Amino acid sequence: MSENLVVIGGGVIGLSVAWRAAAAGHHVRLVDPSPGRGASWVAGGMLAPVTEAWPGEEDVLALGEESLRRWPEFAEALTTDGGDPGLSEAGTIVVAFDRADAEQLDVLAEYLGALGRVVRPVPGSKLSRTQPGLAGSLRSGLLVPGDLAVDNRKLLRSLQVAAKRRGVEFVEDTASEIGDGQVRTGGSVLRCDTAVIAAGARSAGLHPALAGAVHPLKGEILRLRARRSSLAPPGRTVRALVEGRPIYLVPREGGELVLGATQYESGFDETVTARGVRELLEGAERVFPGIAEYELTEVTAGLRAASVDNLPVLGELSPGVLAATGHHRNGLLLAPVTADAVVAMLAGEKPPEQALAASPERLPDRERN
Amino acid sequence: MSENLVVIGGGVIGLSVAWRAAAAGHHVRLVDPSPGRGASWVAGGMLAPVTEAWPGEEDVLALGEESLRRWPEFAEALTTDGGDPGLSEAGTIVVAFDRADAEQLDVLAEYLGALGRVVRPVPGSKLSRTQPGLAGSLRSGLLVPGDLAVDNRKLLRSLQVAAKRRGVEFVEDTASEIGDGQVRTGGSVLRCDTAVIAAGARSAGLHPALAGAVHPLKGEILRLRARRSSLAPPGRTVRALVEGRPIYLVPREGGELVLGATQYESGFDETVTARGVRELLEGAERVFPGIAEYELTEVTAGLRAASVDNLPVLGELSPGVLAATGHHRNGLLLAPVTADAVVAMLAGEKPPEQALAASPERLPDRERN
Repeated sequence: MSENLVVIGGGVIGLSVAWRAAAAGHHVRLVDPSPGRGASWVAGGMLAPVTEAWPGEEDVLALGEESLRRWPEFAEALTTDGGDPGLSEAGTIVVAFDRADAEQLDVLAEYLGALGRVVRPVPGSKLSRTQPGLAGSLRSGLLVPGDLAVDNRKLLRSLQVAAKRRGVEFVEDTASEIGDGQVRTGGSVLRCDTAVIAAGARSAGLHPALAGAVHPLKGEILRLRARRSSLAPPGRTVRALVEGRPIYLVPREGGELVLGATQYESGFDETVTARGVRELLEGAERVFPGIAEYELTEVTAGLRAASVDNLPVLGELSPGVLAATGHHRNGLLLAPVTADAVVAMLAGEKPPEQALAASPERLPDRERN
Repeated sequence: MSENLVVIGGGVIGLSVAWRAAAAGHHVRLVDPSPGRGASWVAGGMLAPVTEAWPGEEDVLALGEESLRRWPEFAEALTTDGGDPGLSEAGTIVVAFDRADAEQLDVLAEYLGALGRVVRPVPGSKLSRTQPGLAGSLRSGLLVPGDLAVDNRKLLRSLQVAAKRRGVEFVEDTASEIGDGQVRTGGSVLRCDTAVIAAGARSAGLHPALAGAVHPLKGEILRLRARRSSLAPPGRTVRALVEGRPIYLVPREGGELVLGATQYESGFDETVTARGVRELLEGAERVFPGIAEYELTEVTAGLRAASVDNLPVLGELSPGVLAATGHHRNGLLLAPVTADAVVAMLAGEKPPEQALAASPERLPDRERN
């Protein structure tokens, strides 16, 4: 049955939901004052359930792996509808800077091994042969062939084109209130059968059930570009622990490199700080010294939608209102499974089973209204 | 006698010369594709002959001090013609990070003392009382009350307004050739009695006598802004030696802070590098830790016009062609004396005597043509 849908939020989640729902035959409007920006614009683009995994977060890993499994098909459909989203299959290498970092890496390797995931330890002495340009002083590494990466900005452009091609109407406005079969924006009232809240860090203010469940986590990201005289960027994603701080370097086409990311809990503050930039550059030089000569082309901050247990909030909040938010650092990875789950729910079908752990049912003190 | 003048270059030197020459009754055209930018746009704004001084560079110091003496009157006339250029009289404190830096500072203090300049040593333990916010671990400091500072961007705006008010015509084009009583640009030929080359680092290509005499020296500068929760910027200019590297922090109105500057010899390359930004931020945090919380609002690079002996090239290169270039790190400081010297030469009068050391006569292998 075709529904009248309003999706709130034009980041990777909102755009994916809108595109897939429109492709499934629903009438979709997407409300966002500037679609294709937000936290999705400020992202490394790692589709990395394994290297993001951590003991005790099996649900997060399972959901991520299910979405990763869906990514190639998602990308293929997207290429047809909106153009190449820039998927890369070069994999990831995770490296440790000092002894304590190496111990953390060992824990991760053991945990992943126990789960049956393919990871290949690389001793420090062989790292720069495995990945040219890595610092000779790194302690140890872990090669993860399974991780994919995507060019977040290409992806956002492609999703916008795809959504429009499938008939999604873009309302460039801010949603202020949801309820009683309608979404109120600054300039209009949009009637709908179902509203989907995919407003990232700003979702909490849109429904009482989300208050306290989703909060902003600032992340600063730098973009750099290799110069003629400098070393080419690494061929695959490099993740590193440097004195306990995680950083990543994700190559893009044309010698570009995305370097991220800091994490600060500081409310709705999107300031790029001196410390954040210094820490990222310092860490990156220790891991991949050639980056010192790169051009610094962009410094940006975004607000991720963090949840308490690192799982998104995915499901019905109240009649006619669905949540697809709280994706933390994993919005790009989780876009396919999230969109599929929402489309299934709209059709009255069961969402993918790995998405059940993300149900709003788990939220404490959930108000139903 | 009123001359027909073409000034090549719309940085602080070209604008000052054009404004003063027009005020003296000459007919002036100024050629620059984007006046008010260039290296003058990317500057700290210190008017600091004393803290820039170095044993063996007495001519540089004398010229700087003469220009500094002329600055208040220059600023007053400019305020009338073009608006407030943002002159600050808060002075400078120079600090040393480690023992070797402190030794360098001692040499500077001794040298300045011998020249009879007023400087006041501050022991490391008293630095943070003298200038709140300075790191407790700094070794020593030197208070220099005489140094002025100017808001380089306000100054450039004011100079443009003043020049226009005095009748200077702006030709937004690039000068390509000079000679035979004319200046050739991309789009026209400007006839003149005298051409003044004030094109900074790009001057060398405009006259054979300047080839090898002036070359580009890249400088990277950051601009930051205090946030509500962070410490206010220092009330005066802070210069520091940090493990041998000089940096400066110059406060601006509204909580802004200019942090500079790296120095690289790398031709006409204006790339902002990862290393440059990292080094500046790292150094600044060691000197003024509160900067870590500041917003990083801008990263830029400019090309200073360096000369071999750190003196500008100021005087006649060939009949009808004057040079006013090669001002190195001191363009803002030396603008008044440079403009006065050019105006004097145009009138057939003697320039200020401190400017004689800057004569092109000193250049080796000078071709006269």
